[in-house]
Amino acid sequence: MNVVLLGSGTGSNAETILRAEKNGDLGDASIKAVFSDNENAGIMDHASHYGKPARFLSAGPFKTKLDGESETAWIKEIEFYEPQLVVLAGFMRVLKPPFLQAFQKRIINLHPSLLPSFPGLNGIRQAFDYGVKVTGCTVHWVNEIVDGGAVIDQAAVRVQNDDNLQALEAKVHEAEHRLLPEVVRRLSIGEIPFPR
Amino acid sequence: MNVVLLGSGTGSNAETILRAEKNGDLGDASIKAVFSDNENAGIMDHASHYGKPARFLSAGPFKTKLDGESETAWIKEIEFYEPQLVVLAGFMRVLKPPFLQAFQKRIINLHPSLLPSFPGLNGIRQAFDYGVKVTGCTVHWVNEIVDGGAVIDQAAVRVQNDDNLQALEAKVHEAEHRLLPEVVRRLSIGEIPFPR
Repeated sequence: MNVVLLGSGTGSNAETILRAEKNGDLGDASIKAVFSDNENAGIMDHASHYGKPARFLSAGPFKTKLDGESETAWIKEIEFYEPQLVVLAGFMRVLKPPFLQAFQKRIINLHPSLLPSFPGLNGIRQAFDYGVKVTGCTVHWVNEIVDGGAVIDQAAVRVQNDDNLQALEAKVHEAEHRLLPEVVRRLSIGEIPFPR
Repeated sequence: MNVVLLGSGTGSNAETILRAEKNGDLGDASIKAVFSDNENAGIMDHASHYGKPARFLSAGPFKTKLDGESETAWIKEIEFYEPQLVVLAGFMRVLKPPFLQAFQKRIINLHPSLLPSFPGLNGIRQAFDYGVKVTGCTVHWVNEIVDGGAVIDQAAVRVQNDDNLQALEAKVHEAEHRLLPEVVRRLSIGEIPFPR
């Protein structure tokens, strides 16, 4: 199963996938390339470290989406790798219909809350501020509703009374680092079905 | 800590509290009475079985709230027991400001989902239909927003692929039966603070 990763940030989740592949823990998944809208993102260093093409692509003038021209370029460049799976690992832009249609039913996203609670930005902070005692993370299929696609898997994290935001963030990230590579592995061996 | 229980249904959650008290597992909590808006509710049988006053009170003509006259009666009858804590254990009516003010910061409710996901009716079915992989239950302080008060504690339940709705309901109820008496116990010994 050909996989490409898209990310904007430090790439700690992308790294867990790359490491899982290196360790033989990613089933039949094969990471073909890593794409970022941020030339200096840590995810680019991880890609290089694991010997993968690290592709920076401009996203255009908008902050939270790709502009039309960039979108066409992204689709074309990603299609080159013939991915069966596109993994959003900290990719901070909302993807629009042309992109979603190009990779229909092949895009998954990792979100740092137990959806449908706390969609959108800052899921961990939202949960912390609400005062929940259980939060976690979600891997879901991506559709046109932000963080609204079908849930693939989730992991729960207990909030302890003495957790500050930083402690909670660390716990949720730890859960993410277990959940995401495991979902990729299970998709690659057919243990989790793709949508029809 | 004087406690009264309010319920409309089978009373399985009320029973776990009554049993915990009998077994010496309810800290400094003392159940003074059980109130129901349903004369034939199972919760009434449980109250009698454990030697507690089982008080049926008419709720008036509405289906989802108390009418004004009934509300006055409920407040008066409950106040007779001088409760430090009012526990809603499957009580199916929305409580309005006069009631909430009478027992301000002393009312807790059990809800069968990980709030803020799936508030309102049929929390377990809502979660099942959404397709979450983690759900659970919540005990929260009651305010004027239905299922919107501050979270006290939550318990997570894993949804397995082969769980049907009935299996999931059984698991969530099991989690409820652990969570609710434990919250009452911890409140009674000051391990969980009351709101100021």
